[in-house]
Amino acid sequence: MKYDTIIHNGIIVTVNRDFDVINDGLICIKDGKIEIVSSRPANYIPSGAKDIIDAKGGIIMPGLVNTHTHLPMTLLRGIADDLPLFDWLNRYIFPLEAKYMNPDNVKLGSLLGCAEMLLSGTTTCCDGYFHEDAVAQAALESGIRGVFGQGVIDFPAPGIPDPADNIKTASRFAEKWQNASSLIRPSVFCHSPYTCSEETLEKAKQIACANNLLFQIHTSETKNEFDMIMSKHGVSPVKYLERTGLLDERTLLVHSVWVDEEDIRIISGHGSKISHNPQSNMKLASGIAPVPEFLKNEITVGLGTDGCASNNDPDLFKEMDVAAKIHKVNLLDPTVMDAKTVLQMATIKGAKAIGLEGETGSIEKGKQADIIIIDTDSPHLIPMYNPVSHIVYSATGSDVRDVLVSGKITVRDKKILSLDIDDIMDKVNLLGAGIKRDL
Amino acid sequence: MKYDTIIHNGIIVTVNRDFDVINDGLICIKDGKIEIVSSRPANYIPSGAKDIIDAKGGIIMPGLVNTHTHLPMTLLRGIADDLPLFDWLNRYIFPLEAKYMNPDNVKLGSLLGCAEMLLSGTTTCCDGYFHEDAVAQAALESGIRGVFGQGVIDFPAPGIPDPADNIKTASRFAEKWQNASSLIRPSVFCHSPYTCSEETLEKAKQIACANNLLFQIHTSETKNEFDMIMSKHGVSPVKYLERTGLLDERTLLVHSVWVDEEDIRIISGHGSKISHNPQSNMKLASGIAPVPEFLKNEITVGLGTDGCASNNDPDLFKEMDVAAKIHKVNLLDPTVMDAKTVLQMATIKGAKAIGLEGETGSIEKGKQADIIIIDTDSPHLIPMYNPVSHIVYSATGSDVRDVLVSGKITVRDKKILSLDIDDIMDKVNLLGAGIKRDL
Repeated sequence: MKYDTIIHNGIIVTVNRDFDVINDGLICIKDGKIEIVSSRPANYIPSGAKDIIDAKGGIIMPGLVNTHTHLPMTLLRGIADDLPLFDWLNRYIFPLEAKYMNPDNVKLGSLLGCAEMLLSGTTTCCDGYFHEDAVAQAALESGIRGVFGQGVIDFPAPGIPDPADNIKTASRFAEKWQNASSLIRPSVFCHSPYTCSEETLEKAKQIACANNLLFQIHTSETKNEFDMIMSKHGVSPVKYLERTGLLDERTLLVHSVWVDEEDIRIISGHGSKISHNPQSNMKLASGIAPVPEFLKNEITVGLGTDGCASNNDPDLFKEMDVAAKIHKVNLLDPTVMDAKTVLQMATIKGAKAIGLEGETGSIEKGKQADIIIIDTDSPHLIPMYNPVSHIVYSATGSDVRDVLVSGKITVRDKKILSLDIDDIMDKVNLLGAGIKRDL
Repeated sequence: MKYDTIIHNGIIVTVNRDFDVINDGLICIKDGKIEIVSSRPANYIPSGAKDIIDAKGGIIMPGLVNTHTHLPMTLLRGIADDLPLFDWLNRYIFPLEAKYMNPDNVKLGSLLGCAEMLLSGTTTCCDGYFHEDAVAQAALESGIRGVFGQGVIDFPAPGIPDPADNIKTASRFAEKWQNASSLIRPSVFCHSPYTCSEETLEKAKQIACANNLLFQIHTSETKNEFDMIMSKHGVSPVKYLERTGLLDERTLLVHSVWVDEEDIRIISGHGSKISHNPQSNMKLASGIAPVPEFLKNEITVGLGTDGCASNNDPDLFKEMDVAAKIHKVNLLDPTVMDAKTVLQMATIKGAKAIGLEGETGSIEKGKQADIIIIDTDSPHLIPMYNPVSHIVYSATGSDVRDVLVSGKITVRDKKILSLDIDDIMDKVNLLGAGIKRDL
C-alpha cells in the first residue's frame, strides 16, 4: 500500500499560511505524516491505502490545540460553581485536591479528560498539574499529543508534601519524559508569581532552559494577584517576571488579564506567548484579557479551556465561539476577533504558543496528520455559506465525527477507539459518588 | 390505560417554586398534562401507560423557552459574520431578505429552525418576523409551542411592500391564529422604536390590547438606537415607549442593553418583561444588558437566542452557559447569575415573560407536559455532583435525548419524529446553494 490512510470528499480548511480552503479535498497519510493535501481529481476513486475515510461532504480541519488544561480536574466538574474565588479555592478545590488527587485518581481523571478532548476534536493539549507523571501516562494511553508540566508551587501539594522538593520533582519528571514518546513533551509549570518565590521561579526556569522546555506560568489572572505583586515587588506581575529573567520565546503566560500597554510591549519584545482562557476568566470573574491588543503587538496567542472546575468542560469549539464574541462586546466592535483569527488561535497559533508549530496545527504536507472531520449533515450546520463560520459559531465538540493523531485514528464515528471509555466512566462515577458523599 | 406516558428512572429538576430536585423521579402524563410528579416508589415497575420512557439515570427537566427568535433566518446562518452592524444589515441581511424571504422559504427556514429547537430541547419559542403566517404554520407542523408575532415596521418588508398595510397585516394574522391551535398564540411584533412611528406603535399596541396579546419590541439594543431616540424624542427609548403608552405587563422588551437606573425602575413599575439575548448582543457588539440589576428590581427576564444570522444557532444550552458567565466577568463578581437563576430564566421565567407560565416552564402537576430528557451517560457529563451545574455549564443541545410537547413525543433518541428532517434539509441545502451562487 502506498499510503496508510486517505481522507477525501470533504472541505479542507487547511489553516496554512494562506488560509487555503479546498472545497473538494484529498489527503494522503503515510507513517503518521501528511504526504499529499490537494484538490480531489475528477472522477477520483480512492485506492492504495489501508484505510479510506469518506468525509461525506463534511469539514476536514486540523485537530484543535488546547494550550491550558488541568486534566485531572474533570473529577471536580461542577462541584463548586458561582462562588467567590477564595471560597472556591480554599473551601472546595484545595481540600478536595489534597484528599483525592493521588496518582491513581489523577490518572483516571486525565483519562476522562483525554477522552473528552479527543471526542470533541482536540488533538494536542498543554497541561500542568501535580502527579503529572500519571497525567502524561494517561495521555500516552489515549494517543493524544501534548506538552505536560509537573507543577511547582511553594506550598504542600499532591505528591509533594514538602515544597522543598518541588524543583527536584519537576526536574525528574522532565528527565523521564524527555525522550519517552514522540507524542509527549515534558515542560515545567510554575503555578504563579504569587505562589512561587523568586528563587523557585529562577530555578524552575533554569531547568526549562537547560532542556529547551516550555515554561508555563499563570500570570496576571486576577486583580487580586496584580495588587499582591505590586505591593510586594513594586511592579506588575509581567514586569516582575521580566526582572526575574523568566520571559523568553519558550515562556507561556497563561491568562494575562491584568496587563497594561507596557506589559504588552514587554511580552511582545521577549517573544513570549499567551494562553487565552476566556470562559474560565468569565466564570471566575477574573476579567477580560486584552487579546486584540496582544494581536496588534504580534504576540502569539493560543486558546485554552483551563480545568473542568472552572469551565466546565474542555470543548474548544465552545471556547472559540465565546472567544470570538467576548472581545466584540468588550470593545463594542463586531469586526475584532473574526472567525478566521479565532480558528487560527485554536490551531496553528496554539501550536506555536507551545512550541509545536512544526508538527501540528495545520494541514500541510510534511506535518503530522493531526486531523479532525466535522459531520456537517446536521440541522444546525446547514446551509453552509462559510465553513469557518460554522466551525467557530455553530459547531460544538459533539459534531466531531473522526479524529486522527499522528495518522492514528483515535475517534471514528464519534466513538473513541484508543481507550476503554465504559471502564473509565464506571470508575469515575464510582469515585464521584464517594466524593459526593464526602461533601 | 390510566396514563398516556410514564417517564421514570431519572433526576427531575422541576424548576417549580421551591426548585425541587427529585433524585429518582416519576412523571405520569394524561391528555397532554402532567398528572403525577413524584419520587419513584421502591421496587416500582412502570405500567398502565401506552408509552413508558426510561430516562436511564439522566436529567428530566422542563422544555426550554426561547423568548426571542426570527426562525426563517436559519436560511442566512453564517452568511455574514464579523461585520459592522450597518454593513451586516444593509449589505447582506436586508437585500437577502427582500430577495429570498417569500412565504415558501420563510416556512422552510422555520421548519429547520423548529427542528433545531426541538432537537436541542426547546419546547416553546417566541418569534417575530414577516410572512409570520408561514412561520406559525411551520411551528404547528413541528409540534412546538409558541407565541408568534407578525412584524410591523414602517419600511417595505417581505410580504408588505407598502408599509401602510403593516398594521392591517398584523391584525389579520392575530385574528387568524387567535383560536387556531392550543400550541400557537398570536402576538404583535413591532420592530423597534426607531423603525416605527409613534402612530404605528400606538396602533399596534391597540391591536395587542384589544385581543390580550403579547406585544414584542426590540428596545435599546444598541448605543446608536439610544442616541437616535434621544436626539429625536429627547428621552431614552424606554421613556419614549412609556410616554407612548406601550409599557404594561403584556409588553416584552427585547434586548434592553442601553438602559439606565430610571429606565429599569420604569420597566419594573409597569411590570413589563425583558428578553435577554447575550450571544447576539456580544456577536453584534451591541453591549451587555444589566441583567443582575433587572433581577434586583424584580423584572421578569427570559433568555433568547435571536435569529441565526446573529448567533448562529438557537441552542439555549449554549445561551445559558454564556448568560451565566458574561455578567460575572462584567461585574467582576462570580456569584451573580448562578446556575439556578439562569436555568429559571431559560424555563419558568421565560414562560412568564411571554405569558405562558400557567402552561409551561416547569414540571408541576396540572401543567402541560413540556418535558425534555438529557442523556448524562457521556464523558463530559460525569461525575454529576449537581445536575443544575451540568445543565448550565456542561451540556449542549446535542445532549438532549427525548422531547415532549404537551405530552406528545416530538424527539426520541435524538431523532425528530414530527418532521421529515431529511426532506427539509435537502430543500434548505438546495436553496442555500442558490443563495451562495448569488452572493
